[in-house]
Amino acid sequence: MSHNSFGHLFRFTTWGESHGPAIGCVVDGCPPLIPLTEADIQGFMDKRKPGQNRFTTQRQEPDQVKILSGVMIDEDGVQKTTGTPISLFVENTDQRSKDYSEIKDRYRPGHADYTYDAKYGIRDYRGGGRSSARETAMRVAAGAVARKIIPGVTIRGALVQMGPHKIDRAAWDWAEVDNNPFFCPDANMAAFYAEYLDGIRKAGSSVGAVIEVVAEGVPAGLGAPLYGKLDQDIASALMSINAVKAVEIGNGFDAASLTGEDNADEMRAGDGAPLFLSNNAGGILGGISSGQPIVARFAVKPTSSILNLRQSVTRQGEEVDVMTKGRHDPCVGIRAVPVGEAMLACVLADHFLRHRGQVG
Amino acid sequence: MSHNSFGHLFRFTTWGESHGPAIGCVVDGCPPLIPLTEADIQGFMDKRKPGQNRFTTQRQEPDQVKILSGVMIDEDGVQKTTGTPISLFVENTDQRSKDYSEIKDRYRPGHADYTYDAKYGIRDYRGGGRSSARETAMRVAAGAVARKIIPGVTIRGALVQMGPHKIDRAAWDWAEVDNNPFFCPDANMAAFYAEYLDGIRKAGSSVGAVIEVVAEGVPAGLGAPLYGKLDQDIASALMSINAVKAVEIGNGFDAASLTGEDNADEMRAGDGAPLFLSNNAGGILGGISSGQPIVARFAVKPTSSILNLRQSVTRQGEEVDVMTKGRHDPCVGIRAVPVGEAMLACVLADHFLRHRGQVG
Amino acid sequence: MSHNSFGHLFRFTTWGESHGPAIGCVVDGCPPLIPLTEADIQGFMDKRKPGQNRFTTQRQEPDQVKILSGVMIDEDGVQKTTGTPISLFVENTDQRSKDYSEIKDRYRPGHADYTYDAKYGIRDYRGGGRSSARETAMRVAAGAVARKIIPGVTIRGALVQMGPHKIDRAAWDWAEVDNNPFFCPDANMAAFYAEYLDGIRKAGSSVGAVIEVVAEGVPAGLGAPLYGKLDQDIASALMSINAVKAVEIGNGFDAASLTGEDNADEMRAGDGAPLFLSNNAGGILGGISSGQPIVARFAVKPTSSILNLRQSVTRQGEEVDVMTKGRHDPCVGIRAVPVGEAMLACVLADHFLRHRGQVG
Amino acid sequence: MSHNSFGHLFRFTTWGESHGPAIGCVVDGCPPLIPLTEADIQGFMDKRKPGQNRFTTQRQEPDQVKILSGVMIDEDGVQKTTGTPISLFVENTDQRSKDYSEIKDRYRPGHADYTYDAKYGIRDYRGGGRSSARETAMRVAAGAVARKIIPGVTIRGALVQMGPHKIDRAAWDWAEVDNNPFFCPDANMAAFYAEYLDGIRKAGSSVGAVIEVVAEGVPAGLGAPLYGKLDQDIASALMSINAVKAVEIGNGFDAASLTGEDNADEMRAGDGAPLFLSNNAGGILGGISSGQPIVARFAVKPTSSILNLRQSVTRQGEEVDVMTKGRHDPCVGIRAVPVGEAMLACVLADHFLRHRGQVG
Repeated sequence: MSHNSFGHLFRFTTWGESHGPAIGCVVDGCPPLIPLTEADIQGFMDKRKPGQNRFTTQRQEPDQVKILSGVMIDEDGVQKTTGTPISLFVENTDQRSKDYSEIKDRYRPGHADYTYDAKYGIRDYRGGGRSSARETAMRVAAGAVARKIIPGVTIRGALVQMGPHKIDRAAWDWAEVDNNPFFCPDANMAAFYAEYLDGIRKAGSSVGAVIEVVAEGVPAGLGAPLYGKLDQDIASALMSINAVKAVEIGNGFDAASLTGEDNADEMRAGDGAPLFLSNNAGGILGGISSGQPIVARFAVKPTSSILNLRQSVTRQGEEVDVMTKGRHDPCVGIRAVPVGEAMLACVLADHFLRHRGQVG
Repeated sequence: MSHNSFGHLFRFTTWGESHGPAIGCVVDGCPPLIPLTEADIQGFMDKRKPGQNRFTTQRQEPDQVKILSGVMIDEDGVQKTTGTPISLFVENTDQRSKDYSEIKDRYRPGHADYTYDAKYGIRDYRGGGRSSARETAMRVAAGAVARKIIPGVTIRGALVQMGPHKIDRAAWDWAEVDNNPFFCPDANMAAFYAEYLDGIRKAGSSVGAVIEVVAEGVPAGLGAPLYGKLDQDIASALMSINAVKAVEIGNGFDAASLTGEDNADEMRAGDGAPLFLSNNAGGILGGISSGQPIVARFAVKPTSSILNLRQSVTRQGEEVDVMTKGRHDPCVGIRAVPVGEAMLACVLADHFLRHRGQVG
Repeated sequence: MSHNSFGHLFRFTTWGESHGPAIGCVVDGCPPLIPLTEADIQGFMDKRKPGQNRFTTQRQEPDQVKILSGVMIDEDGVQKTTGTPISLFVENTDQRSKDYSEIKDRYRPGHADYTYDAKYGIRDYRGGGRSSARETAMRVAAGAVARKIIPGVTIRGALVQMGPHKIDRAAWDWAEVDNNPFFCPDANMAAFYAEYLDGIRKAGSSVGAVIEVVAEGVPAGLGAPLYGKLDQDIASALMSINAVKAVEIGNGFDAASLTGEDNADEMRAGDGAPLFLSNNAGGILGGISSGQPIVARFAVKPTSSILNLRQSVTRQGEEVDVMTKGRHDPCVGIRAVPVGEAMLACVLADHFLRHRGQVG
Repeated sequence: MSHNSFGHLFRFTTWGESHGPAIGCVVDGCPPLIPLTEADIQGFMDKRKPGQNRFTTQRQEPDQVKILSGVMIDEDGVQKTTGTPISLFVENTDQRSKDYSEIKDRYRPGHADYTYDAKYGIRDYRGGGRSSARETAMRVAAGAVARKIIPGVTIRGALVQMGPHKIDRAAWDWAEVDNNPFFCPDANMAAFYAEYLDGIRKAGSSVGAVIEVVAEGVPAGLGAPLYGKLDQDIASALMSINAVKAVEIGNGFDAASLTGEDNADEMRAGDGAPLFLSNNAGGILGGISSGQPIVARFAVKPTSSILNLRQSVTRQGEEVDVMTKGRHDPCVGIRAVPVGEAMLACVLADHFLRHRGQVG
């Protein structure tokens, strides 16, 4: 069952709400003897952290991660994993005790308010409960552990579309990603986004985005032909992120428009493995990695919390108009970049261990 | 683990290769006392069956399903499920013993040939082994059982794009779906597809497609906020189908281009539940069903088996040109329609049981 | 979930009832490239097969196993696993269509009749449905595959107690196990059992047994400290066998009576690993294998089907006296020997793969 | 996978070592709207807590449990579960920083020291790491939540044997269990145990025990015929507790000595359900609960930490004599009583939800 866990041999379980005292996760199945410190994780946490610029929520959270179990300092003074569960813990420090009475009984359109009630008969209206993007901090933490498991793999992500505006893929420069607040690999487009998103933000509106995540150096052979397909688990991983509504691998939806001749990735003799002449498949054939870069994209819907009135109803069935005050992201997709990377890392770590288990 | 199983409380496990004596699946977790006969399943099998017209593979398979366990005839002569595993069995009758020596050592571009070898060090070159679309027959069989589990749900699918050609959504008529060999809900476009695909077929080429599946009557409350999200499991289910490279829910990728105002589905007072004024969310909010129709789309890549030469290499690393002779579908996406429906049915059945288990 | 599946990385799923057309199982997660033929499995099937002497049920079943998937003949003519699911199939040939009207509505004491009805509202009264010991044939088949996975391991079982009569452990001779119909390692006791069980059989009665299974050559390091404990999974495996009511590892219940000094297995320097001076732990310390032989015992209750009247009630709540006519084992524990071996093999195969996956 | 998690629909995951800053668990799948406070859990924690008398370890731990997520105070001021994961947290306050250099490289007989090293190549020698009985505190916490899930069930446990000394079952009085430090239901035997265990303790020795746990009021129908057998999962649950080496249900090993006539529980007409005249089955028939009390027993081996020298080796393979100084329990079985109760509660909660899910 997977209510709040993800993965099999490498598996993490998250807990915590936006407005509780803390959030955390338990990472299970991490191999022993891997050097791991809080600093290794913190760098990724900082990348996702809110309040770093005017384009993300102004909630101030240090998001300082603590490792509570699963590591030990060895004789050389190096802290290493022990093979036992790694408990990661982050305090909530800025869960502002504001008045939630306004939304307590109102279903905010685009939010999970009504569906929570329909499911549980109760919902944590303070900040969205488990549906808060705050949960994604723990995915990033788990992903930081996952990155250490497969040697030689580089996992990176970038924002490739904001609202209707796509980047120029010819201008892609990974080095640019850390030079702008959008994780955008196209410097010109980043400049455009700054202005564009300012407009959205000032209008109290929000906008969606498309994120691309890429893993290089993944060995061929991870995944399985069916049900344990690598792309299936990537789809599951990325679709599990808040506000994500679409996932594609390689050519994705564009593959539908192609002929078999155009879509097939031809091969020439390589060094110990075939040399692929293209990567329409996004690095996965028949559910199994090919050794090429794994490429996935996902769409994040516009932030549902906006300052403009929308029609809705209350729990009691009365018609109301709702707006969502408070600190919010005008484009929640931006902060989904490190989250998407983390989820990809977790899928790959899990499949790496599963492959090693089954095939040896 | 999910190498060859799908689902949790409602779970099926498939087995069998294209060129073995039979294929089958075991459906576990089906509630007891549900009327179930082979005829209930056969109708869906027939819809997916190959060789029914010139647009699908000419392999002749009756695909006659047998129920080997899990049912019993009650005192009124009605065959019902007993709550124990239902073994479904289909003989392979037309696994033509042709000469495979030509592709035995060649990696067909777009196929899983190389990745199988990379994973297992062995591959069943006869018809693709587990990667054959033949496996999907058993998904359809499992889906037929799943459909019986949630009362009042209607699950239908349609082809909405072939190659670059999309249907006119304004012309959508579910009644048309069974009137043409493409499961196309737009009669005009179906006529166009017939001509278009004939051209593709005669050229020895292939083309991709986009399929849409819709479930109506799903109660609100199925799914979970995270990791057990309903849309996550639908993404996993659809991406597990052979040749699928993309999945989206509701607005999907288009949501990225919208503002929060436009994307939010507003609500008015309804009869015991909110009345949604739009369904951009595709029936799922925060991972949980809203009671609206669930709408998902997936892209199927063009059939990789084509009659035109592509560059490749052999297992031994020699460069060769490969073409794939034999019986194949010029648009494998067509037959993915009943498969997509079946997978959606299985996800919904599983979540229906899980919800009933956890929430009561 | 594990309604009808057992294991994780090495997992099997069984299906079928005593009185259906066939029974079978799907073995998932078997590594590729392992030589495997039907003959490899059949030997173990024959050991468990009914009707071989007067001490087991006279049902005549050839129990001829067929492999329907997951293997391929390689270039050297050797049939090997491919890493995909192995479907194993056994026809039911002697499901005598006798009249079950007598027990259809009667709850046989000691059987699962009442509890099935309480759970499912329906029960397959023909031969016990899923509770028939016939299901254990497929465990033996799955176990035969499992035995091939860990190199160098020998798994054997023996009956060590019938009714109140224990064997003389000092007389233990593995070679005797195949010389008598009881899998008894003590030749004298086997002779006694023959006479004793004849008496039981002629009286229409039945009796219980204790079985011991031993695995030699298991590498140290399999298992996990908690929840994935090797002894926990062995307990689960053995307790899942029909009619088993107790399981112990090593000293088992006797350990309660010992002091820490007596129970601890002391160590001396060995060849690359400690040399244990005793094996009170049964080869498992803290849930992890120690390299010593793994020793487990389980108790099988007396066959519930007896020819003597017992008080009971009908489905309708009327009081009746029930006896169970038909072909039955006076000591069902005998045939549990190969089943226990098989389950131990499956647990070890699973943990071997899991360990290799997590620790490398 | 179940390295550190237990259960399916009701599942908990524990983390933490004896000598880290804290231990904890995440309880997933608890239904919503169940009143739950820290006080509900604390009572059970206190029962298991060390240092309460001279017969258990003198480690001083308040074991104050905190609920960090998964609950909310409703409008009536009642704190209730929300259906989301419940994070339970206990600080370690007395992880005395003593000098472990003495055992760091020595394998203590009876402990998991060698097997940890064999598995992970590293072990947390400070207090036993994950193998410390301290982990069981979190089982008790999870069990306290589980108890709230099935209405009308009473789960109790008692020590029925210490060393070779069994209680007089005729003297069983549940009320006595809380009157002595041994959870012993036989007042006379409790007095004897006090003297007996004092002797053991003063000798620096230890002794084993047998614990019995009983659940009354369990509805008929929980469990499954195979692999999801209720007794199988109870065996798994109890065997997963530290130092447990044997489990039995109802008559258990004694069933082997009985005839079918004696072992079968006869039935007479009852009030809406059969009235069983005995409970040899321990409340479970064919893996499914019968409505009778569920009765299980488990053996706890003597504490491996003793003050007397035992022969062993070091990591480096040198022969040494080892004794284990420090604070320990002369009979760790005593504190296993609340742990066994908790594990039984968790199994029943899981099966209650699973049954409700599958059968409705």
